[in-house]
Amino acid sequence: MIRFACDYDEGACPQILAALNETNFEQNPGYGEDPHCEHARALIREAIGREDALVQFLVGGTQTNQTVIAAALRPFQGVIAASTGHINVHETGAIEATGHKVLALPDPEGKVRASAVDEYVKAHWADPTHEHMVQPKMVYISHPTEGGLLYSLSELEALHDVCQKHGLYLYLDGARLGYGLVSSRTDVTLPDIARLTDAFYVGGTKVGALFGEAAVLLHPDLQKDFRYMIKHQGGMLAKGRLLGIQFEQLFTDGLYTRIAQNAVDLAMQVRAALKDAGVPFLYDSFTNQQFPILPDAVVEELSDRYAFEGWGRVDETHTATRICLSWCTKRESVEAMLRDLLPLL
Amino acid sequence: MIRFACDYDEGACPQILAALNETNFEQNPGYGEDPHCEHARALIREAIGREDALVQFLVGGTQTNQTVIAAALRPFQGVIAASTGHINVHETGAIEATGHKVLALPDPEGKVRASAVDEYVKAHWADPTHEHMVQPKMVYISHPTEGGLLYSLSELEALHDVCQKHGLYLYLDGARLGYGLVSSRTDVTLPDIARLTDAFYVGGTKVGALFGEAAVLLHPDLQKDFRYMIKHQGGMLAKGRLLGIQFEQLFTDGLYTRIAQNAVDLAMQVRAALKDAGVPFLYDSFTNQQFPILPDAVVEELSDRYAFEGWGRVDETHTATRICLSWCTKRESVEAMLRDLLPLL
Amino acid sequence: MIRFACDYDEGACPQILAALNETNFEQNPGYGEDPHCEHARALIREAIGREDALVQFLVGGTQTNQTVIAAALRPFQGVIAASTGHINVHETGAIEATGHKVLALPDPEGKVRASAVDEYVKAHWADPTHEHMVQPKMVYISHPTEGGLLYSLSELEALHDVCQKHGLYLYLDGARLGYGLVSSRTDVTLPDIARLTDAFYVGGTKVGALFGEAAVLLHPDLQKDFRYMIKHQGGMLAKGRLLGIQFEQLFTDGLYTRIAQNAVDLAMQVRAALKDAGVPFLYDSFTNQQFPILPDAVVEELSDRYAFEGWGRVDETHTATRICLSWCTKRESVEAMLRDLLPLL
Amino acid sequence: MIRFACDYDEGACPQILAALNETNFEQNPGYGEDPHCEHARALIREAIGREDALVQFLVGGTQTNQTVIAAALRPFQGVIAASTGHINVHETGAIEATGHKVLALPDPEGKVRASAVDEYVKAHWADPTHEHMVQPKMVYISHPTEGGLLYSLSELEALHDVCQKHGLYLYLDGARLGYGLVSSRTDVTLPDIARLTDAFYVGGTKVGALFGEAAVLLHPDLQKDFRYMIKHQGGMLAKGRLLGIQFEQLFTDGLYTRIAQNAVDLAMQVRAALKDAGVPFLYDSFTNQQFPILPDAVVEELSDRYAFEGWGRVDETHTATRICLSWCTKRESVEAMLRDLLPLL
Repeated sequence: MIRFACDYDEGACPQILAALNETNFEQNPGYGEDPHCEHARALIREAIGREDALVQFLVGGTQTNQTVIAAALRPFQGVIAASTGHINVHETGAIEATGHKVLALPDPEGKVRASAVDEYVKAHWADPTHEHMVQPKMVYISHPTEGGLLYSLSELEALHDVCQKHGLYLYLDGARLGYGLVSSRTDVTLPDIARLTDAFYVGGTKVGALFGEAAVLLHPDLQKDFRYMIKHQGGMLAKGRLLGIQFEQLFTDGLYTRIAQNAVDLAMQVRAALKDAGVPFLYDSFTNQQFPILPDAVVEELSDRYAFEGWGRVDETHTATRICLSWCTKRESVEAMLRDLLPLL
Repeated sequence: MIRFACDYDEGACPQILAALNETNFEQNPGYGEDPHCEHARALIREAIGREDALVQFLVGGTQTNQTVIAAALRPFQGVIAASTGHINVHETGAIEATGHKVLALPDPEGKVRASAVDEYVKAHWADPTHEHMVQPKMVYISHPTEGGLLYSLSELEALHDVCQKHGLYLYLDGARLGYGLVSSRTDVTLPDIARLTDAFYVGGTKVGALFGEAAVLLHPDLQKDFRYMIKHQGGMLAKGRLLGIQFEQLFTDGLYTRIAQNAVDLAMQVRAALKDAGVPFLYDSFTNQQFPILPDAVVEELSDRYAFEGWGRVDETHTATRICLSWCTKRESVEAMLRDLLPLL
Repeated sequence: MIRFACDYDEGACPQILAALNETNFEQNPGYGEDPHCEHARALIREAIGREDALVQFLVGGTQTNQTVIAAALRPFQGVIAASTGHINVHETGAIEATGHKVLALPDPEGKVRASAVDEYVKAHWADPTHEHMVQPKMVYISHPTEGGLLYSLSELEALHDVCQKHGLYLYLDGARLGYGLVSSRTDVTLPDIARLTDAFYVGGTKVGALFGEAAVLLHPDLQKDFRYMIKHQGGMLAKGRLLGIQFEQLFTDGLYTRIAQNAVDLAMQVRAALKDAGVPFLYDSFTNQQFPILPDAVVEELSDRYAFEGWGRVDETHTATRICLSWCTKRESVEAMLRDLLPLL
Repeated sequence: MIRFACDYDEGACPQILAALNETNFEQNPGYGEDPHCEHARALIREAIGREDALVQFLVGGTQTNQTVIAAALRPFQGVIAASTGHINVHETGAIEATGHKVLALPDPEGKVRASAVDEYVKAHWADPTHEHMVQPKMVYISHPTEGGLLYSLSELEALHDVCQKHGLYLYLDGARLGYGLVSSRTDVTLPDIARLTDAFYVGGTKVGALFGEAAVLLHPDLQKDFRYMIKHQGGMLAKGRLLGIQFEQLFTDGLYTRIAQNAVDLAMQVRAALKDAGVPFLYDSFTNQQFPILPDAVVEELSDRYAFEGWGRVDETHTATRICLSWCTKRESVEAMLRDLLPLL
């Protein structure tokens, strides 16, 4: 069985394991106050071009989202997201657990549009009963989105501008950020993100780490006492060094983007092969996740050899299927899968 | 510099690192639904002698405490703990974050006494205004306590009985459980704990794992939908296998207690040497943490070579000092430290 | 200026004021444990035909909703509501304040449909990642809805059945219940509601009381310790007698429905007059709220004499307008308004 | 049966009832945006001498406390209070419901001491693990305290200073504020309180209103969007006018302090009579609550004619008993009670 179900089916890239082995018996203070974390923070600040950024490491994406969002909002404030946004659908109410409503905006592509934000926020303040509604104060986007799409630089700038206009924080969930940065179709760099958002995170879990996300807090309001917030949410890792050591590796010699490139290259191969075969796609993704709409019979036929994730029925006989390529997917696996899949179409 | 500041200054025991290396490129489903987690669960159920236990792995202790407690309580209910209990002091309000009050009972040794619970709960229900007070519904104990002390079997049985009597859940925080199980002065076994509590956790972070705690839910009320609760709290690890792999190792060939024994043996050596030198202790601990009351000048004198943790001033010139021995502390380190310390007393 | 903006523009019906005056210097225990509350509870239990109901009085609707919902749900559970439901739109996140997500289902009429609930809940449990999504556990409906519509008995029975089928609680927000009970188009009685829901509330604030809602808890799970829950949410009124005295009056000699009838009769007069004039309506309401779609110029023209509430733009020149008739609206006021309005159409 | 159990056993003072009657059919916008509320706010701002104060009305004390405190604190921050403080004991965890820990300081008189605050906060920041503990950010005091005691002006100034020094908000719970302002032993005025605190509330429920508290927000941080906060907590009264009308009366012609004087005068009469009879007191109160320590047999003997509230056993045969005199207690009632009580001592 070869799994294409997600990008966290394996452990970590070998450089990370090697570093964990080498440093294992070093003695370090806990909770992220060790030299590895300090070094990793410096590497990330350098990579994003913001010396004033506060970088803190957390274990997982849901935890990072709930911690950043709860750090930013007052109790009656909410966060705008796409209806399909991870925080609105797949976090078992982790944002609501901190008391905040997710203000979901529908969008055919699962993006948050600057114009939709503008309209929503203007309508809020124009409503004479606005005190009876959750006050919008933050915009959450994922880049790539849950469907593998990317914001263009101009889209990101427009979101930045509309947030500035209305006094909203802009927060970018970078669970799969690496796979976005290396896409052939992106014009957005890490420094762009650091310039245009108030907070974002660099995802490690899905891009070659055992676990770990690097939260980057840019707005001073969000920086203040953020470590209290992590602990309050139960998210402070005792052996914080583990996070530092992993991000040290990921941000040394371009490892983070190098391993992301493998996934995206293979994704483009899958995409091309299926497009050639006339397969329609749910989202037009140029990142590591591909969403071909496949006949159920085909998926069923392959199910003993390949694991995909269903992404919703499209009609009686077809299902949008997620094929996830990762930092460590092997070219042979992809070729074997295509060899078995294509003849069935 | 040799650190005795805590028992999570290093990485993990070599068997764990080896297993992570060996399994690294296995493909597994995420979120703890992989064969390693299943196997580790079976090993733990066997070790505790309860086939009906639900075992779920979490990343850290605060997270485990807040998840178990919030899973058990209705909104207006609280958890009884010693004033010095970890949840009352050192979790930045992580329990309150879930809406629950910690009902703190003072105790000179930092234990929760069955008689004090009985008195508190009877007083609650006898008060005609009891609906105006937080309803006690759970008792939290740590074993060993924050001060390294152990509940005797009869104390544990008394707590069990008083909880049964009043319809309270009994929950045991086993962050350092291994160090308690191997103490020469304990008569409490893992099966005793599984028999007498409604939930407990087997601490990995402080006993040789990179991270990870095994929550053991015994009462059916606490088992139901517990995985939703983990996700809701932001605590579900994507690569859950990492937890399974570590606990597989810890519960194979007695590794968990074997490495704990190292810490406790060295702790007894420290204890004996300091007792011989006439040093008083804050707590009479037979586990891996020792709390000698040392002259400030001595601690200061050693501070460039040995890291201890201050545990509160005792008088103008003395401080209770925590000396923590761990699963990987070396005998040479202890001997060097004693060699340097004893002449100063 | 005559206000038709809402149904709580005035004080209370004279019987209530008289009773408050008469009982003013009685001495009573606080917090709803007085004879007036006991009597009012008995009257309500009788009116609904359920001797096993627990009746508790709260001050307002949002408070009642958040208290009942938070009493019913475990932390990771959510409540299904129409997208336009009061808890989803107009309570400033009061449900999220208790940690729970509102699971909003869109519906053109703003009703929750049994079939939509069935589909949603089946999809939840069928999804292999359901633990990553908020677990649906309650259905919230308002009757009349925010748009003045009523559930038919068969719709209510279908909701009851689908809730039973899936183990959901059914909760009915009766902020304007009186106006629904007396509608000429309803086949739903108070005993029907008490038979088919797990909890509901009889709204006082909008139907002639100074303030106050009577929460009726039918399911034993919701009854247990509900008064703790009220206090925990900050909703326990010190002089609880004030609620008892008011509901004693409302449930004596049919006062509650008698005053509601006045509103609905006048609403039907407004409805008929505007229908005759060819005015379209946003909702086809047979209760006290009417939502004619009026030319902006007309509303503007009348705005110095009559207060209405805007209910959303329909097109460039028209606005859905809420005309609210209440327990104390005078026939003269309605006639004057129609006299001024009709010629402008 | 004559009740001295609390100061909210009756309805409201006649001026309030009269005003409610007179204004009953006025039409007003809801939610506290009516002319009565505006007028009452102006009267209060004038009485406290702070034109920049934001005055908002809430229904009850617990609701006010939880709303003000939750408005002020970030998630990981807590509020310092006396162990016996109302928020720590008698609000069923309403503060914890908003996610915040009450940091309880023991004190023999149930006061918060500036020196104790200073020590606590300094210790917090001096602790190298302070990020693992709830961050103190507010001080809560009640004036009079739960035991009827009053802060002197110098005590209040010292609290103000220590709060300024450490960046804490100072919040005063004035549930019984009227009874404090008229005490013969106070040197604290309403303008003093408005000058020295960041927020306080003027209690109506216990001082002659049907219900209602006037929250006074002085610090700009607490003013911002406070009405959202009220609604989010479920505390926004639909017919807000009811609060405005009541406070208009209370702050017209000195009604508030005049009715409070009645209670305190009678309390002094009780106090003198029992002191003369050699009865010891739990607290040395010069406000409307008296806490004589009475033989159980005496209390029992009187229990069919007079209701007191037990305030805790003192020894095997004696109980501290609360005798509460209110704005409407009659002199005859007090004299009858003393006539029956004194011979039994």
